[in-house]
Amino acid sequence: MTGTPAPFTPEPFTAADYEARMRRAAEAAADAGLDGVLVAPGPDMVWLTGYAPPADTERLTLLVLAPGRDPALVVPTLEAPDAAGAAGAPALTLHDWTDGKDPYAATAALVGASGRFGISDNTWALHLLGLRRTLPHTDYVPLTEALPMLRAVKDAAELERLAAAGAAADATYEEIRTVRFAGRRETDVAADLADLLRRFGHSQVDFTVVGSGPNGANPHHEAGERVIERGDMVVLDFGGLLHGYGSDTSRTVHVGEPDAEEREVHDIVRRAQEEACRAVRPGIACQDVDRVARAVITDAGYGEYFIHRTGHGIGVTTHEPPYMIEGEEQPLVPGMCFSVEPGIYLPGRFGVRIEDIVTVTEGGGRRLNTTSRELVIVD
Amino acid sequence: MTGTPAPFTPEPFTAADYEARMRRAAEAAADAGLDGVLVAPGPDMVWLTGYAPPADTERLTLLVLAPGRDPALVVPTLEAPDAAGAAGAPALTLHDWTDGKDPYAATAALVGASGRFGISDNTWALHLLGLRRTLPHTDYVPLTEALPMLRAVKDAAELERLAAAGAAADATYEEIRTVRFAGRRETDVAADLADLLRRFGHSQVDFTVVGSGPNGANPHHEAGERVIERGDMVVLDFGGLLHGYGSDTSRTVHVGEPDAEEREVHDIVRRAQEEACRAVRPGIACQDVDRVARAVITDAGYGEYFIHRTGHGIGVTTHEPPYMIEGEEQPLVPGMCFSVEPGIYLPGRFGVRIEDIVTVTEGGGRRLNTTSRELVIVD
Repeated sequence: MTGTPAPFTPEPFTAADYEARMRRAAEAAADAGLDGVLVAPGPDMVWLTGYAPPADTERLTLLVLAPGRDPALVVPTLEAPDAAGAAGAPALTLHDWTDGKDPYAATAALVGASGRFGISDNTWALHLLGLRRTLPHTDYVPLTEALPMLRAVKDAAELERLAAAGAAADATYEEIRTVRFAGRRETDVAADLADLLRRFGHSQVDFTVVGSGPNGANPHHEAGERVIERGDMVVLDFGGLLHGYGSDTSRTVHVGEPDAEEREVHDIVRRAQEEACRAVRPGIACQDVDRVARAVITDAGYGEYFIHRTGHGIGVTTHEPPYMIEGEEQPLVPGMCFSVEPGIYLPGRFGVRIEDIVTVTEGGGRRLNTTSRELVIVD
Repeated sequence: MTGTPAPFTPEPFTAADYEARMRRAAEAAADAGLDGVLVAPGPDMVWLTGYAPPADTERLTLLVLAPGRDPALVVPTLEAPDAAGAAGAPALTLHDWTDGKDPYAATAALVGASGRFGISDNTWALHLLGLRRTLPHTDYVPLTEALPMLRAVKDAAELERLAAAGAAADATYEEIRTVRFAGRRETDVAADLADLLRRFGHSQVDFTVVGSGPNGANPHHEAGERVIERGDMVVLDFGGLLHGYGSDTSRTVHVGEPDAEEREVHDIVRRAQEEACRAVRPGIACQDVDRVARAVITDAGYGEYFIHRTGHGIGVTTHEPPYMIEGEEQPLVPGMCFSVEPGIYLPGRFGVRIEDIVTVTEGGGRRLNTTSRELVIVD
């Protein structure tokens, strides 16, 4: 049993940490032939500056990074005190604008009259159109397309946080195995999962999937009103943020004794997940991780029932590049962190998914989730 | 005392309701010289279709409305069952796309090769850039700029929901008056406000401002670690969503006996709010509501301390057009719903704000918040 994880209080990231990230982003932009990077509130901004505005709104907040220039943050005057309090603020120049003034004009001087810029994917269209109108000779490309691997390689301080988030998710699984399943609704077990994630230190719960019986065969199912019955397979998939970094793990349990087919399907997924985790090492392509998992399932005759990619990156969000998917030729690099989560989904009957977060080391993959992957029987 | 509001279970909106809204939007687009409207997940999509995807992500979900054409929703295959279950789905044609396919190509046939389109403000830049790349002869304008009043005039069923949200906020204020303030942190009182809003039926709490003493002088302050003291003015500003529609009310209370200046400043704000509410009637401009409130405060010598607009619209969001601000010449129309919330902020000392939601009727303004606006003394 994992038990309660030891209390975890990481050293906060410093202004120097954020300065290094911003410099790295500006250099990567230059290498990619861009004149700079524009970042709206969201995970990229959190990662680059430590700043998360109270809300992402019609009021423009925008980080401007350009090679050889000091990082600048355009911010509404009302929110400038909040921004000035962010951990990365000492590495930034704040440029505030007041309600009623044109924020795009305030940004224009920082961006320059022309050029090609990466812009964070989730920037509001309102703001992109405002920039284009003010600066008609500028051109934009989505940041994940221009610099997909910007946040993909984690440093030691980030890996420490991801490991702590994984340990908290593991403790959650050890506890949820002991609760009653039969006769309760999926949403009841999902609420238990959320409570446990918070109890073990998560500040944010992003998802608590409880897919019982036929609901487990829909990989997009979250948790519903269905009452779990004896004889159900139940897919559990849960995660969130702890100290700003993500957890995401899946286990499939059975209520009472499984039959031979249920055991067999579970075992195929377990082997696929095991083989894919073993395949992880520096230099192989992301798509190879997918291929290894898929081959095990296909060879066992269930290929058509494995209907999603094998994994996704994780960091300050619970879904981000790199993606373990056919066609992704990006080689794995030490410090990358992602899920390995094959599954088999038998429509109208049941599903099985097993998922760990894995990080790439020089010597191969290291799992951040270590609870048993055997088919566990619950009550 | 307001007491606990009566249970409120509105008639759900029907597919016919959503169909009428989508038709109205397409017609308004044509009147504005647009070839259509594109809407990403968010409040516009909720209002037009009743559909709120589980999350707003890199996977494209987009509503396409064009005059004379049937409404269409582009949706990821995995999420198509969710979309098909939305109340407005019978009025929509779903066009699903599978992971690995190009969603912009799937959208292109619905949009057409050229034209000028309104696009919802919060659409991700990723998607706008994807559309522009696939359809280089299309042009886009932010939806709030093209059709700012699309959602501004509420019908009877919407007003009923807004009134219920207002009643729940009023019940929250009546209760919060009775709790202990002195010796507790602002965040403690904010947590009480959130609990009360939920207890009185809110499904979502958007903000719980508790600005005590000098913190009340920062209109952007939310709630902090400051311990509230005897002698403090305390600005309370709270709201969220109930049955999908918003509440937003402010009252300023005093811990123990106020002094003469505190009474005077509070009374000026109360009179400004009263005059502005009385000025509301069909045909006057939004900016006139602001001017009336501002004149009272300016005449009393505090004009420089009223540092924000007088109000904002409310509906499926808690902040939306129309804005009661200098320069907004939009005339008031029966069914519009907005806040009237003048304030005075004395830096380093204290603040006062009083806010009600008001709806425009043929006969004038009708307040949806009716608790006392006198300066209340709390413990």
